[in-house]
Amino acid sequence: MKLAIYGYGNLGRGVECAAAKAQDAELVGVFTRRDPTSVKTHSGVPVYPAETIGSFKDKIDVLIICGGSATDLPAMTPALAKDFNVLDSFDTHASIPEHFEKVDAAAKESGHIALISAGWDPGMFSLNRLYASAVLPDGQDYTFWGRGVSQGHSDAIRRIDGVKDARQYTVPVPEALERVRRGENPTLTVREKHTRECYVVAEEGADLARIEREIKEMPHYFDEYDTTVTFITQEELDRDHRGIPHGGEVIRTGSTGWNGENKHVIEYSLKLDSNPEFTASVLVAFARALDRKFRRGETGCRTVFDIAPADLSPLSPEELRAKML
Amino acid sequence: MKLAIYGYGNLGRGVECAAAKAQDAELVGVFTRRDPTSVKTHSGVPVYPAETIGSFKDKIDVLIICGGSATDLPAMTPALAKDFNVLDSFDTHASIPEHFEKVDAAAKESGHIALISAGWDPGMFSLNRLYASAVLPDGQDYTFWGRGVSQGHSDAIRRIDGVKDARQYTVPVPEALERVRRGENPTLTVREKHTRECYVVAEEGADLARIEREIKEMPHYFDEYDTTVTFITQEELDRDHRGIPHGGEVIRTGSTGWNGENKHVIEYSLKLDSNPEFTASVLVAFARALDRKFRRGETGCRTVFDIAPADLSPLSPEELRAKML
Repeated sequence: MKLAIYGYGNLGRGVECAAAKAQDAELVGVFTRRDPTSVKTHSGVPVYPAETIGSFKDKIDVLIICGGSATDLPAMTPALAKDFNVLDSFDTHASIPEHFEKVDAAAKESGHIALISAGWDPGMFSLNRLYASAVLPDGQDYTFWGRGVSQGHSDAIRRIDGVKDARQYTVPVPEALERVRRGENPTLTVREKHTRECYVVAEEGADLARIEREIKEMPHYFDEYDTTVTFITQEELDRDHRGIPHGGEVIRTGSTGWNGENKHVIEYSLKLDSNPEFTASVLVAFARALDRKFRRGETGCRTVFDIAPADLSPLSPEELRAKML
Repeated sequence: MKLAIYGYGNLGRGVECAAAKAQDAELVGVFTRRDPTSVKTHSGVPVYPAETIGSFKDKIDVLIICGGSATDLPAMTPALAKDFNVLDSFDTHASIPEHFEKVDAAAKESGHIALISAGWDPGMFSLNRLYASAVLPDGQDYTFWGRGVSQGHSDAIRRIDGVKDARQYTVPVPEALERVRRGENPTLTVREKHTRECYVVAEEGADLARIEREIKEMPHYFDEYDTTVTFITQEELDRDHRGIPHGGEVIRTGSTGWNGENKHVIEYSLKLDSNPEFTASVLVAFARALDRKFRRGETGCRTVFDIAPADLSPLSPEELRAKML
């Protein structure tokens, strides 16, 4: 399958590397809205201006769109579905139904196939929520995130006056995790599930007390959490907080038996050194499935829920049954 | 969907209970090779002689076959696929390709659909091996089982002369689990991964030293493991080892990045109070998917790898996207 990348940030660079590891994938090019002469790919794959993508119709099997969920993807994915099979990692959970409808309409009209919201949450975590709830209908779901870097929360801190740089970690509360794992089925508030750790580089002479207060009181982002703010130097941030790790757990506890007497715990856990590279690896696996479905004549929008697992693997159905079942 | 159960042991009783919890399922009956008057179902659903099942054609959407993998299922599943959509939990991993071919041929010829090897291993564990390897091609898989009761190993002990009753637990070696979780990618022998704990009730006057030796030296079952044998009374066995718990972990550790510099750990874990009831719950979810696929005109044999997750859930695609993605 011939892949191309639209948008070359952390995620796009991850897709470039993941595509190189997939023996059945060939990377046609990278499309960027920046000046292409300013962008150098790691693999040497050519870089093209985003606006020239129209001339690549029929040269790309699946276009992986690596834009942001806030403003890029809601416009890009439906627009590009007019000419390409497209795949994105749209992660604004509340807006997924709306995004799906737009992409579905565009893909159906143009006779292409699309898949939105692939990654780990939404993505692998969603799959595990679905499998676990289908198997244990009499139960309850819990999703914990972290310990990991939240890009959105880090950005929110950076927008505060007097802040030069920042890194925010989302951290699950260990006691909450343990109660869930023990099958207590607790009702947990937002505050009881996660804490937020902020490492902030302030500009010289900035009012640190005000910055700390503005962070802790920021609606939605921090006000419902126990938040700690630690001021550090740019050198410390660059040295100790360079990585983009993340991860988390999807846990479902439930019961079976006529009186619910038998308890079961299903837990799916991810520990990721690099959030964007893992997300990119998920995208490339789903690109394979999308390419196969398109060759079978399918069109319209899909999600990870609609993909039979066998379509994700380069192995044949016979090999999968012999080796993995 | 109208379900029926063929075989009413621990697994069949689990399916009866799981079907009662599925709001879209109706249980038509239980079929048994025993004298039906000697079998009383918990829910009061009628019991029929196995040989009368032919008269239930067109009255059952999916027949869940709850027989043993050693001798029952290899014959039953292909034979019953001639008249019904069938589902089993065939778990002899090495014979899955052969079983698949037979069931596929029978189902295709009769225009029915079938699914083999649903449960947790094969089943949910297989799905997790597949997803994880598709997403992290540059990595390694580990499956650990336990702590849990192995029915096959307990049966093997019971066949030894002088043994009245026995219960065998498969136990993962904690150090091995920890090394895998740390991402060391160790090469582990059979002995390094699991130990086997045997609780044995001997007949009066039996030679305990001989029984212990025969267990520990039994080829395939015990000779490759560190095995402990503890003799207990029937009362102790009935009191302390009545349950049928099981579980385990599927772990894949892998790396991304141009030099494999970023490590990732994907772990799926099950802690099950009742092995047969959990397996039964998986079967009922896959029965739902099978019924839907048959209504779409599909025939032939499938495995868990061929089922799009959305088909397992009673929720609509719209609800799934809004609530679980």
